[in-house]
Amino acid sequence: MSWNRQHLLDLQSLSAEELTTILHTAQAFKAVGERAIKKVPALRGRTVINLFVEPSTRTRISFELAALRLSADVINFTAESSSLKKGETLKDTLRNLEALNADFIILRHGASGAPHFLARFARSHIVNAGDGAHEHPTQGLLDTFTLFEHKGRIEGLNVTIVGDILNSRVARSNLWALTTLGAKVTLCGPSTLVPRVFETLNPGVRVTWDLETALRGADVVNLLRIQHERQRVGAFPNIGEYASLFGLNQARMKWIRPDALIMHPGPINRGVEIESDVADGPQSVILEQVTNGLAVRMAVLFLLNGGRPTDLGM
Amino acid sequence: MSWNRQHLLDLQSLSAEELTTILHTAQAFKAVGERAIKKVPALRGRTVINLFVEPSTRTRISFELAALRLSADVINFTAESSSLKKGETLKDTLRNLEALNADFIILRHGASGAPHFLARFARSHIVNAGDGAHEHPTQGLLDTFTLFEHKGRIEGLNVTIVGDILNSRVARSNLWALTTLGAKVTLCGPSTLVPRVFETLNPGVRVTWDLETALRGADVVNLLRIQHERQRVGAFPNIGEYASLFGLNQARMKWIRPDALIMHPGPINRGVEIESDVADGPQSVILEQVTNGLAVRMAVLFLLNGGRPTDLGM
Amino acid sequence: MSWNRQHLLDLQSLSAEELTTILHTAQAFKAVGERAIKKVPALRGRTVINLFVEPSTRTRISFELAALRLSADVINFTAESSSLKKGETLKDTLRNLEALNADFIILRHGASGAPHFLARFARSHIVNAGDGAHEHPTQGLLDTFTLFEHKGRIEGLNVTIVGDILNSRVARSNLWALTTLGAKVTLCGPSTLVPRVFETLNPGVRVTWDLETALRGADVVNLLRIQHERQRVGAFPNIGEYASLFGLNQARMKWIRPDALIMHPGPINRGVEIESDVADGPQSVILEQVTNGLAVRMAVLFLLNGGRPTDLGM
Repeated sequence: MSWNRQHLLDLQSLSAEELTTILHTAQAFKAVGERAIKKVPALRGRTVINLFVEPSTRTRISFELAALRLSADVINFTAESSSLKKGETLKDTLRNLEALNADFIILRHGASGAPHFLARFARSHIVNAGDGAHEHPTQGLLDTFTLFEHKGRIEGLNVTIVGDILNSRVARSNLWALTTLGAKVTLCGPSTLVPRVFETLNPGVRVTWDLETALRGADVVNLLRIQHERQRVGAFPNIGEYASLFGLNQARMKWIRPDALIMHPGPINRGVEIESDVADGPQSVILEQVTNGLAVRMAVLFLLNGGRPTDLGM
Repeated sequence: MSWNRQHLLDLQSLSAEELTTILHTAQAFKAVGERAIKKVPALRGRTVINLFVEPSTRTRISFELAALRLSADVINFTAESSSLKKGETLKDTLRNLEALNADFIILRHGASGAPHFLARFARSHIVNAGDGAHEHPTQGLLDTFTLFEHKGRIEGLNVTIVGDILNSRVARSNLWALTTLGAKVTLCGPSTLVPRVFETLNPGVRVTWDLETALRGADVVNLLRIQHERQRVGAFPNIGEYASLFGLNQARMKWIRPDALIMHPGPINRGVEIESDVADGPQSVILEQVTNGLAVRMAVLFLLNGGRPTDLGM
Repeated sequence: MSWNRQHLLDLQSLSAEELTTILHTAQAFKAVGERAIKKVPALRGRTVINLFVEPSTRTRISFELAALRLSADVINFTAESSSLKKGETLKDTLRNLEALNADFIILRHGASGAPHFLARFARSHIVNAGDGAHEHPTQGLLDTFTLFEHKGRIEGLNVTIVGDILNSRVARSNLWALTTLGAKVTLCGPSTLVPRVFETLNPGVRVTWDLETALRGADVVNLLRIQHERQRVGAFPNIGEYASLFGLNQARMKWIRPDALIMHPGPINRGVEIESDVADGPQSVILEQVTNGLAVRMAVLFLLNGGRPTDLGM
């Protein structure tokens, strides 16, 4: 096991060994969440800044709790009412936060590449908490970790991701981690949102616009959230149309292997990409993903801070 | 003394013994606030989520400080910018927070019954921080505790509550706690806001639309805030009219016993439901209520967490 | 060294000895920020409330981190969604926070004199985090501390402040601290924003509307932010005009001594009051100011709490 990076910017550039190190470290931290006293002193006296230029309560809370359970001091910095609104550049914001001796900057940003840009100058640790349509590495890691916990391996698994792949950073981060670890990934959705070009990214990737084809033989189906509040004109006629073609319901569960897992990055739209009885059914691991997200984020902060997995008795 | 409940949802369902247990526990915690180091380790490593779907800075801060002084980790989750806005159901929000191993969910919600609904599924402890016009149990407890501290008992006391009773969760929580502990409650205000039907709720309740009748013989007068920012059309002509009929001023203090207490849940509208010289006068215990609110909330969190009052040397 | 004050309201009323005590204490705390574990137990169990009636992410974060690194419990209270919006008076807000046993109220307010007003009633420690156009004492202290660190003294130095002096609390706080400690202060900017009357405040103050005159012989140039989002009609034609007359660029650096420091309270408007190559150049200490702000705020909280500089090994 090894970890020598200063930042976590994406999953595309991580090796199989690095990914595996995170997964094993996450396993150790998952146990912390089950204790009565959910706290370890690993990051005591360190400063973690949640720099959320694009808002996200869910991801912010997961990172905030991860940092608190590692005993760090955490500051929330959202774009509303901040100096970014006063025309300060992102680079100047970084420099200012580092001048406050920030150790970790957790960055959520609407622009793809924003964390990579900051990392070029950063003395602190930059963690990408989602950048535009590019990557959301801790989401990719928690999905991979959940799969790994259930199946005991990633290599050789068939993973299907359904939804607006084109605009999804979750899909991209999953794709990189899963193919690096030897899984096959099938991408499915309306042709306007799942261009054939994804197959050229990686030999382990297949594109199909037919849900049945995508579901048959899958070890896991990851249903992305249709962001109908941001629905771009023309991608598909309407939500009802999407649900009727790509929503997962009980009838379509017959196409799926009985031991296949159902995942969703949340928050779920019941009745759109997933029916309630599927979301709450025995194959769903949606809430485990949330639990694992916290474990993965603790692991990432711990490793970036120079913690060695062996310190955790592994 | 006894406590075996998982949640604090309302005061209506609490027994006299349970109410008394909270009051005695609050007394012990009040002393913590007077120390130089205002901190006890009772909830170290526990996670408290302030889930405020309806905003309230005042109540949120009181719960946040209560949790911090018990050494818990606290996360603030407001409806603005949250996944609730993205159409997530309240039940799904609960499940997600529990997947993060939240131990306590402090819920403020505009809909009556929201905490009871969540409690049906919850593994964590649900604390009602105000639900619609239904109940605000910690406010009822802090009012009762303040009265108890001053009078040494609740049984046999005459308590008058003046204001918009119809829409007040504070009035309801007070009513249940006080009558369970043997007090008589008089409700007073414009007839449009104090329907006679309240007398059928409990034999200890009396309704009057005449302020003098309400004030004579009272051991305490609790003046509710007139929420003129939400004033419903037609309940009464205007604020001036309300103040002239139901506002407590120095002239009307002659109707009140010299040892009667003046309470108000805050924030006060000086010159509306209460004149400044009354609010700041010797009979006012309005600021003590704030102090006691923190003590009561620490007591509630402590008891729900399984703390035994005997651990506090009581 | 001595400190006997309950509050930090302004720098105008501080003696040279008091200012020096803060500077020396800040030096000790600066070292804390450079440790791996950036935390001391000095304020453990104390409650610090950031009462920001006027928003400011930057100053709030600096105070929040200062309090966390002193191990205090910190609550953020912003005017949005607060009871202040419901018509509560500032005095009642103070009393309510003190009823929660708040030890420190960090107040940012749009009205000059607001912290002095509160201090008349306060049992807690009031720290002025900026009041209208009046003072911003911790900014004045951090500027003075930065200068002191570099030059080893304040007495006899020539300090030039450029910008909207009329509306600047930063300028006023700097002016008082610097002249009390024996520096000469030159104020420069458009005549509409730098009235001659400032010279009557203090014999150590000089006014000029000519940038070259202001820059020649200065040991430090402090460039204030032009708040073009609040630009008042008529003070100067436009931002371009301001930059061409008072912006500091490479060409004008020849008027400045090679050992002069460039300061700016941030956030900087690159290309307006300062060109990028100057802001990022070898004479700029802008980011050191941010670091020193945290040290100064820790020192202020520590001293107000009754901490003695000798406890820090000084």
